[in-house]
Amino acid sequence: MADPTLRRLILAVALAVVPCLPAMAANDAPQKTAEALSRKALTDDWSYKFLESLTSEIGPRLGGTEAEWRAADWAVARLKAAGMTVHTESFPMTAWLRGVETAAIVKPAPQRLVLTALGGSVATPPGGIEAEAVIFRTYGDLLAVPPGSLNGKIAVVTERMVRTVDGMGYGLANPIRRQGASEAARRGAIAYLHRSLGTDNHRLAHAGALNYTDGVPKIPAAALAGPDADQLERLSALGPVIVHVTLTPTTDDSAHSITVVGEIKGREKPDEVVLIGAHLDSWDLGTGAIDDGAGDAIVSGVGRLIAALPQHPKRTVRIVLFGAEEMDFSDKAYETAHVGEVSKIVVAGETDFGARRVYEMRLPAGAVNSPFGKMIAGLLPPLGVLLVPEAPRHGGSDIQDIGADGVPVVALSQNGLDYFDIHHTADDTFDKVDPAELAQNVSVWAALTYLVAETDVDFRALAKATAKP
Amino acid sequence: MADPTLRRLILAVALAVVPCLPAMAANDAPQKTAEALSRKALTDDWSYKFLESLTSEIGPRLGGTEAEWRAADWAVARLKAAGMTVHTESFPMTAWLRGVETAAIVKPAPQRLVLTALGGSVATPPGGIEAEAVIFRTYGDLLAVPPGSLNGKIAVVTERMVRTVDGMGYGLANPIRRQGASEAARRGAIAYLHRSLGTDNHRLAHAGALNYTDGVPKIPAAALAGPDADQLERLSALGPVIVHVTLTPTTDDSAHSITVVGEIKGREKPDEVVLIGAHLDSWDLGTGAIDDGAGDAIVSGVGRLIAALPQHPKRTVRIVLFGAEEMDFSDKAYETAHVGEVSKIVVAGETDFGARRVYEMRLPAGAVNSPFGKMIAGLLPPLGVLLVPEAPRHGGSDIQDIGADGVPVVALSQNGLDYFDIHHTADDTFDKVDPAELAQNVSVWAALTYLVAETDVDFRALAKATAKP
Repeated sequence: MADPTLRRLILAVALAVVPCLPAMAANDAPQKTAEALSRKALTDDWSYKFLESLTSEIGPRLGGTEAEWRAADWAVARLKAAGMTVHTESFPMTAWLRGVETAAIVKPAPQRLVLTALGGSVATPPGGIEAEAVIFRTYGDLLAVPPGSLNGKIAVVTERMVRTVDGMGYGLANPIRRQGASEAARRGAIAYLHRSLGTDNHRLAHAGALNYTDGVPKIPAAALAGPDADQLERLSALGPVIVHVTLTPTTDDSAHSITVVGEIKGREKPDEVVLIGAHLDSWDLGTGAIDDGAGDAIVSGVGRLIAALPQHPKRTVRIVLFGAEEMDFSDKAYETAHVGEVSKIVVAGETDFGARRVYEMRLPAGAVNSPFGKMIAGLLPPLGVLLVPEAPRHGGSDIQDIGADGVPVVALSQNGLDYFDIHHTADDTFDKVDPAELAQNVSVWAALTYLVAETDVDFRALAKATAKP
Repeated sequence: MADPTLRRLILAVALAVVPCLPAMAANDAPQKTAEALSRKALTDDWSYKFLESLTSEIGPRLGGTEAEWRAADWAVARLKAAGMTVHTESFPMTAWLRGVETAAIVKPAPQRLVLTALGGSVATPPGGIEAEAVIFRTYGDLLAVPPGSLNGKIAVVTERMVRTVDGMGYGLANPIRRQGASEAARRGAIAYLHRSLGTDNHRLAHAGALNYTDGVPKIPAAALAGPDADQLERLSALGPVIVHVTLTPTTDDSAHSITVVGEIKGREKPDEVVLIGAHLDSWDLGTGAIDDGAGDAIVSGVGRLIAALPQHPKRTVRIVLFGAEEMDFSDKAYETAHVGEVSKIVVAGETDFGARRVYEMRLPAGAVNSPFGKMIAGLLPPLGVLLVPEAPRHGGSDIQDIGADGVPVVALSQNGLDYFDIHHTADDTFDKVDPAELAQNVSVWAALTYLVAETDVDFRALAKATAKP
């Protein structure tokens, strides 16, 4: 510390780096504090380390299992340490537990097939099912065949989902996974396989839940890795293909899941709630880094930054780490528990689309041209985010039920071009996350969350005013 | 066919497309025929379809197993149909058969680990081995600890191999897989794991053979997927990590492998042999598309093009599809069977580095500046291939023993930047191969092989002349 040049340099850096956050928060406009929070987030690695710890020290955390409960304990401690008031909300669920999952082509060319059982699938007999595979190159081709035409067969849909930046390809392909098993069963099939809903070509299958249709026999169902679907296509073009599939999942009707909630109580209007969330559970094949540990890290990081302000914002900020989203329980459970409080939730937002950069913000109808919209718009250009006029199509799966009950929703669109290369596979691990991109997400969410909490913006009123002729 | 413009167009295209190959082969210089062959190969999909069929209708084909023998039968039929005289050469070997391979972190955070047993590894007890993992971030760190220091532990080397265009990163990292188990055992370890020799970050482990050192206890050994090695690194930094590993491979000492040979007998010097080869066996996890179905497709495609010429070249062209390369038997078996014939092999070349474009050709010492070198150099610019002055470092694993016996070797360098993303994993499937890049390989090998077979180039004499002071 003897070199005066070095001393001057350190002083200059210190002056530049410390943006007098406390003073600004106390005295300056909300926009200034939001901007300072946003800047601070960009060079803060807390969320990245949060994600590293969650994905390593907890790892996979399937909803309704002991691993998810360990994740909840872990999250409670983290949110408390980050300055939030924390509680948990437990709810009952049926857990689904993966068993053995193996498959092979038996004829004409014996070889292993890579697949994974769909969440909720019933089991095959312990020795598996062996039958001829009938290949449909599109889901529509399956729907076009009559009842009885697949009696005793294994139906296989090899349609590819399409890569898009916004996940639309996944949304439109979803019935292949969700309804395919029941549609195949209606036509007589004894098992159902489909090409994974994914955009990669790795020998890793993409998990995901199905929905059986009432009144239709439940048949075992699994997703094939992309190259394995290719292989079945090629061989079936040459002659009959016999496939053997063994899936032995089990269920537990008396399980429960846990949602973890961290709050920063509003200093003026504690009953008005700004809710941002992500889901804490993950599929069991990977360690849930992009789905949705990244979301947990982002919203928790926002909560920590806001809790560290010298004074809380006017409204309550609520960070929700939902349980059992992948098992389709999180939204209904949250709505059921909070049905009396819906009108007090000023806005809800969710991040559940990985850790790539945010490129677009969508506010509830009528908000973009309001003073609030102008305020947030001023913060976005340095972050590379566009405020677009359209309201969100939806808020996200965890908040869809409260959204349907009238809670206004915001959405930040992330670059999802490679999200479905990894989504729901064993490849969903920490190494796939870029720390700078993760930090940009925290930055944008922090600015937005703080501004809503510190101002009087009333999204319901803005929407109503807009809806007028 | 009524439109005269269309008729003219078709005529023009036909004239452009048919380069009168027969006439040229009979009457023109070797260079012209080589050029015509090379052009023809670029738009020919025979090799691509060969590869599609091999990887689908045979699939994985581990050396010394029934799958490899099916591949041999299949190859015999293909080479015959392509106009070659075909025979097989069987040789005894010890087969190694993969069993169960599972692993998990038991403490502190229970989760599955993705790994694959190394070829040749002994088995764990059926119930597996459970012990503390000791992590070494470099192989050198393992070598630096004294005997006894790993007593009762599982040694884990997490060193990453480096991505290079020419595979040098793999070559230099090879001792980690080849010798690591014995080096760990010398120090008391009861099992050995290492980060897969690969450049990807997928949850797919890279197989490969090991070599136990005589006099050192044989311990079970496996390769971890990259992200799983990361996970062990992270958790071990926090405290002790207990790992459970189960590997149950078996061996069969009375197995055999089959090498398939297709020949185009030389019209003037049938005893002089131009040998090009690839290996027919593959690791069992994938379907052996880039390793080495692509090589089989390339050399077989060259054989087919040369066999289809109106007259055979002066020298014999020999296409060799080696058995059991991955198990380290192919080179010695071939040398043993052909020891009396080594002096008649004019040159040998091998393609076993995937299906990416060739960018560089290396001829035996002294050949580049010879008339032969100038002839081949004239053909390469349109193919994007550089003829470099250096002789090959080696010919390839299948021909290393005959190379050591004095057979001159040629080498075509392929772009290997992403080869080790896939090499020896379940991901080695047909979809990873680009047909245009595969065709370029056939094109370059066809030109080179034909020219050597049709001219009197004597690489041994050229090397001797160059070696003089």
